Amino acid sequence: MTAHDAAQKRGRTRFERSDLILFAACAAGVLLAWLTNGQGSVLAFVLAGVAVAALAALVGRAVEQLGDRFGPGATGVLQSALGNLPELFIALFALQAGLVQVVQAALIGSILANLLLVLGLSFLVGGLKHGTQRLDSERAQFIGVMLFVSVGAMVLPSLAYYLHTPASEHETTLSMIAAVVLLALFALSLPASIRKADLPQAVPGEAKEAPRWSLPVAIGLLAVAAVAAAFVSDWFVQALEPAMHALNISEAFSGLVIVAIAGNAIENFVGLQLAAKNQSEMAFAVVINSPLQIALVLAPVLVIASNLFGFASLTLVFSPMLVMAVLVAVLLTTIITFDGRSNWLEGAALIGLYCIIAASFWWG
Amino acid sequence: MTAHDAAQKRGRTRFERSDLILFAACAAGVLLAWLTNGQGSVLAFVLAGVAVAALAALVGRAVEQLGDRFGPGATGVLQSALGNLPELFIALFALQAGLVQVVQAALIGSILANLLLVLGLSFLVGGLKHGTQRLDSERAQFIGVMLFVSVGAMVLPSLAYYLHTPASEHETTLSMIAAVVLLALFALSLPASIRKADLPQAVPGEAKEAPRWSLPVAIGLLAVAAVAAAFVSDWFVQALEPAMHALNISEAFSGLVIVAIAGNAIENFVGLQLAAKNQSEMAFAVVINSPLQIALVLAPVLVIASNLFGFASLTLVFSPMLVMAVLVAVLLTTIITFDGRSNWLEGAALIGLYCIIAASFWWG
Amino acid sequence: MTAHDAAQKRGRTRFERSDLILFAACAAGVLLAWLTNGQGSVLAFVLAGVAVAALAALVGRAVEQLGDRFGPGATGVLQSALGNLPELFIALFALQAGLVQVVQAALIGSILANLLLVLGLSFLVGGLKHGTQRLDSERAQFIGVMLFVSVGAMVLPSLAYYLHTPASEHETTLSMIAAVVLLALFALSLPASIRKADLPQAVPGEAKEAPRWSLPVAIGLLAVAAVAAAFVSDWFVQALEPAMHALNISEAFSGLVIVAIAGNAIENFVGLQLAAKNQSEMAFAVVINSPLQIALVLAPVLVIASNLFGFASLTLVFSPMLVMAVLVAVLLTTIITFDGRSNWLEGAALIGLYCIIAASFWWG
Repeated sequence: MTAHDAAQKRGRTRFERSDLILFAACAAGVLLAWLTNGQGSVLAFVLAGVAVAALAALVGRAVEQLGDRFGPGATGVLQSALGNLPELFIALFALQAGLVQVVQAALIGSILANLLLVLGLSFLVGGLKHGTQRLDSERAQFIGVMLFVSVGAMVLPSLAYYLHTPASEHETTLSMIAAVVLLALFALSLPASIRKADLPQAVPGEAKEAPRWSLPVAIGLLAVAAVAAAFVSDWFVQALEPAMHALNISEAFSGLVIVAIAGNAIENFVGLQLAAKNQSEMAFAVVINSPLQIALVLAPVLVIASNLFGFASLTLVFSPMLVMAVLVAVLLTTIITFDGRSNWLEGAALIGLYCIIAASFWWG
Repeated sequence: MTAHDAAQKRGRTRFERSDLILFAACAAGVLLAWLTNGQGSVLAFVLAGVAVAALAALVGRAVEQLGDRFGPGATGVLQSALGNLPELFIALFALQAGLVQVVQAALIGSILANLLLVLGLSFLVGGLKHGTQRLDSERAQFIGVMLFVSVGAMVLPSLAYYLHTPASEHETTLSMIAAVVLLALFALSLPASIRKADLPQAVPGEAKEAPRWSLPVAIGLLAVAAVAAAFVSDWFVQALEPAMHALNISEAFSGLVIVAIAGNAIENFVGLQLAAKNQSEMAFAVVINSPLQIALVLAPVLVIASNLFGFASLTLVFSPMLVMAVLVAVLLTTIITFDGRSNWLEGAALIGLYCIIAASFWWG
Repeated sequence: MTAHDAAQKRGRTRFERSDLILFAACAAGVLLAWLTNGQGSVLAFVLAGVAVAALAALVGRAVEQLGDRFGPGATGVLQSALGNLPELFIALFALQAGLVQVVQAALIGSILANLLLVLGLSFLVGGLKHGTQRLDSERAQFIGVMLFVSVGAMVLPSLAYYLHTPASEHETTLSMIAAVVLLALFALSLPASIRKADLPQAVPGEAKEAPRWSLPVAIGLLAVAAVAAAFVSDWFVQALEPAMHALNISEAFSGLVIVAIAGNAIENFVGLQLAAKNQSEMAFAVVINSPLQIALVLAPVLVIASNLFGFASLTLVFSPMLVMAVLVAVLLTTIITFDGRSNWLEGAALIGLYCIIAASFWWG
């Protein structure tokens, strides 16, 4: 530990084996995605998806190494800001390509995938390996309440659109209002997130590593990964439509399931790893934090950006089944956070629910 | 304290400065409302609204002074019966004026304003001043469950109307059945309310004052305030339609937001005061008790009275968006009561949700 | 106790007075139902209903006596498998008679009757006799979560049908998928149910009786009761339509209320008895377990059987009001399980809610 410390103090960069594997994966992914780009094949789509996931992992790693310079608080903020970067790029390119329905389905699909599939898998894996797991109920319940409010605010324009006729002519205005409220809530929650970012270190047995990358290396890699993510996201979106037709998949299903899972691959993997290590509280926090950020940041930013810069008109008026599915999922998650315990059967039940929802979107 | 006690025993009335200010406010409010009555101006509407709020405060004060003669139990019942008096008058005059949609929106709006805006403000104020506040979870959870059941029963006729075609021809019958069930639940809950009325005294540091008004004075002022409230409510309703047109506000919005906030001004103010004093449990009880009484008493009484005496046909078939909004708000409140803690960020989230709901009713 | 034990060891069967009363009730019920069968009268319908209930009790008793040979675990599984036998027969005959709407209403109605009427009655009876009762919150919360997930999965095909147009052409496929998921969850939950079946003995003051019936007697009576239940269920369904017309009751109401209550008579009675004895946890477990099994076993088995053997096309696409009513009821029950306490007023509120729901289905 002292050797690392010394290396870090002198500003030297030390790459571990996992770093090198990640670099190789990113390079190979980007190269293959570039080579197949424009073929319009399913292979091109899959390779672009893999490259997006690898770059998302690299962004995450660089933020981790970067943030530690500024203390855990700033890391939290940076992760909030940059963690959804690949999802943001994919959504922006998809909006430019006019795939508004795909983006809407992907926003809800990311929430559903996290709350049902990934949470279910982490309960299943954690429960089978370690029996009934406990959730830190005080913090979990706070996140549960915030998740319910945020997702509720996010789908209110849809409810108004379908249920209150006079409001349906003003869907963009109402979506903009909801987006501003959501971003304001996000801004207000930042100080609390910063404080909360201290928590992980408090977890015993999880000693915080010293950063291994020097500041310029971390910033440089972050910049490279972000630029590459932008390109690969573009290819991913270009390959999406041909792949949808080749595989005969509807827009709704590909957004809800495929784009959503590809965009969240990293959070999902990290959550599962933590659950397998019996760090159920951390796993829950990681998995549930992602949908919170989609509702508080990603969705409102996309709505405001798309309407302000006029490249597409994304609103928060989702299709009715998306609204209902996300309300059921959020309600269920909130109930589970109040339970304070999880077991593998609950996990299996969540996965089963996800499968039925995904199946009902198969016919687009 | 012994001087008060002696004065009270001899039946003498002692007015405090706050009493005198209240009398002055009521007199000025009623006078100005009477002078501007019939002008059809926005000023007349605002003055009538202020006068209603002042008289509501006077009714509350008189009940407080009156009830103490009969012990805290009777106070509870009296407050239950008379606390919503101004709202009842406004609703009755509005029904007579054919403003059925305004009354329906005001009923749901009162619930929403209490559960989202006022509760949010009290969490915000209390949280900023005192950090995370605790709610007495055993009693809070009981109220939460009762609130969910009552509001659920109140909106069931709407659900049946929209979702079960054969029932839609019988909306009045179904509303009357629901109203009878709600009133029966209220009657059954009275003994428990009476017992619960003892609780405030148990709160340390809140020594119960001896009544300062003699019995005839209290009854007399109550009668005067009630009669005046009836007149002013009439003027308020008369001024409502011209003001709506002058300000270009829809019926739904004016009922949901303006009438609802005017009618609940006092409870709201008391709730906020208690939260600021860090008496979060009392604040929560006051704020959440108001929607419970709207569902259990005010709504069913209005439905039964309007249909029995035939001056208007108010049913419990609310517009779909009102139903959805109140269900989301009640569910959220119930979840928060189970959380057992509140902080300012939750408060801000509730206020944000209220703003989006109010905005979606802007276009009537 | 030693006398019983000895009798049991020698494999001798000892009938208690309650057994003999049960035999007499079954014999009389079946005889009278057979005599009036085909009359198409309301009396025939009532007698068939009583006979079904008596046979359901006999099946329950035989399973109890049988299962004790194989330990409490197997009893749990057997009860799971056979407890809903009469309901299954009634549903199958009703499907053959083309009464699909009645069966759908009865499935939801059984859940509603258990969660609102029976749970309400048991809270009312238990609360009036013993004051506030506690629910074993850890186990209750687990059942609450599972109930929410199961019923959620069960109504998802309905939500997709009404809210996602492309899925509405595939209602049978989607219902089959949901049914397979539900049965898989049931299969996964069996080991946990087997372990949980040990719990009752742990309850103090409820010493487990040794089986009084020899193995062949228990199996024989079970077989006889099952065969008789099949016949009587047939008569019950035959008498249902004439009785509906004679009493001028809609299909929806008769399924939701009458068939549902008749089919669950036994669980209901047992639950109430346990609540009256202040065994509120056991009462809650019995009452809430029944809807869980309807969602996890009965509904999916009926969907798969009816579509595979082609005698009728039962899907999980329920009428919208049934979906909404069951979602409200399940949500409320889950909230109550998290409350961890019950009192008579909550019980009255649940019964009131049930009455309004039942009333709204009066007009079919």
